[in-house]
Amino acid sequence: MKRHKIGIVGAGNVGIHLAIAFSGNAENDVFLFSRSNIEKQFSDRLKGVTLVHDLSFTKEQAEIVLLAVSDQSIEGLSNEYKDSEALLLHTSGSISLDSIMRHKKDQCGVLYPLQSFSLRRNLEYSKIPFLIEASDSKNLSRIRNLVSSIDAQCTEVDSADRKKIHLSAVIVNNFVNHLYTLGSEYLTKNNLPFDLLFPLINETASRLADDVPAKLQTGPARRGDISVIQEHLKLLENHPQLHNLYKTFSDSIANFHRQS
Amino acid sequence: MKRHKIGIVGAGNVGIHLAIAFSGNAENDVFLFSRSNIEKQFSDRLKGVTLVHDLSFTKEQAEIVLLAVSDQSIEGLSNEYKDSEALLLHTSGSISLDSIMRHKKDQCGVLYPLQSFSLRRNLEYSKIPFLIEASDSKNLSRIRNLVSSIDAQCTEVDSADRKKIHLSAVIVNNFVNHLYTLGSEYLTKNNLPFDLLFPLINETASRLADDVPAKLQTGPARRGDISVIQEHLKLLENHPQLHNLYKTFSDSIANFHRQS
Repeated sequence: MKRHKIGIVGAGNVGIHLAIAFSGNAENDVFLFSRSNIEKQFSDRLKGVTLVHDLSFTKEQAEIVLLAVSDQSIEGLSNEYKDSEALLLHTSGSISLDSIMRHKKDQCGVLYPLQSFSLRRNLEYSKIPFLIEASDSKNLSRIRNLVSSIDAQCTEVDSADRKKIHLSAVIVNNFVNHLYTLGSEYLTKNNLPFDLLFPLINETASRLADDVPAKLQTGPARRGDISVIQEHLKLLENHPQLHNLYKTFSDSIANFHRQS
Repeated sequence: MKRHKIGIVGAGNVGIHLAIAFSGNAENDVFLFSRSNIEKQFSDRLKGVTLVHDLSFTKEQAEIVLLAVSDQSIEGLSNEYKDSEALLLHTSGSISLDSIMRHKKDQCGVLYPLQSFSLRRNLEYSKIPFLIEASDSKNLSRIRNLVSSIDAQCTEVDSADRKKIHLSAVIVNNFVNHLYTLGSEYLTKNNLPFDLLFPLINETASRLADDVPAKLQTGPARRGDISVIQEHLKLLENHPQLHNLYKTFSDSIANFHRQS
């Protein structure tokens, strides 16, 4: 198997996780560029990775460069690679391929890992879906090779569809986590333990494998149980944010299932 | 170990699951009352259970009766048991102990399983937290014995606290499932597969074991990325329900984290 020389730019959550993932396969050489020193707590997990502090190293040595930086920095950085021979990929859900293609015409693509990375968690990389896109089919197949070096799956989607999937990811990850947050705050303020809900939370997520979520909907709003809804709204009188969301959701659930 | 003679009234999701759970231990005799015949598909899983169609059977034979019926039916049914010697428990998150205590003064309690039951799923009963409450300490310890017959955990909470936990369960189960529903509908309408999001959904749930959800919050609203938010709202122009929820959530996340 061909050895991949991979440069990763950016040592945030995504950059560090991708460096760990790709360096886990001995066929890959991974360089991780970071302006500052990586915190000691991660150096152990990064022992197969070469840390570099000079961007030119990734421009000259890497065959594939992954930009694991903020959306705002992608286009500016792309321009820096216009004379590099590396295949340049960004890792963002919401930035078009066009943004880097402007600078790296026929040597660019996207490798968007559809997962939420937290430095405190170990992930099974083989279970992360990578959404990929490239300037041409030759580069697309190079990206496929790269992803298969860590036994992960990839799905080809264009920039417009990737944005829609990213939007859905915001809903099922960021918005859901905000509901967890408000539920947790409410219980904590009432001196009740949030972890009692963990089995329910995990079941709610994992049963999606069995049926479409609309068919799994239960609860007072679904069955039109006004008295429970009223009692809950009363309990939330001193929690205006949660009170507001509770009403919005109860209406939205009732509406959705009336229509369907 | 003492044999428990358990009557379960109601053959909906909760009743059938509790019957399966309690009959799984050979020390328990389980009678399940149902007005109609149980669908064939469940009879296999209920083979250790005696199906009865006459309520008087549970009044006379059972030592403990579980009312696994709708909230609205609990008080009326309690009255039917006022001359029975059985310990009468309801299984609802939102109904007070008082509602049955009115009729069964010193022989009543609550056994609320904090889980969402779907007939298509097998559950690990030992992982379901049971919230319990009783008219006196002797009955509380009978309920503890009953729960320990299936190796599950129980937590004693009074009716007021149980209602608060039930409210939180509505948030992290019903409301979260509604977000899954809207995300799934949006992708389906755009011919994109919802199951791409399963690894992200499961990670979002399971990482709660590591930190409080507020600290795990990420996404455009958390980092104040107005341009992504605007782009998402534009994508949702023809999805008024989701558009509305997207705005509500983005504001709520921004507010919450500005305050904290």
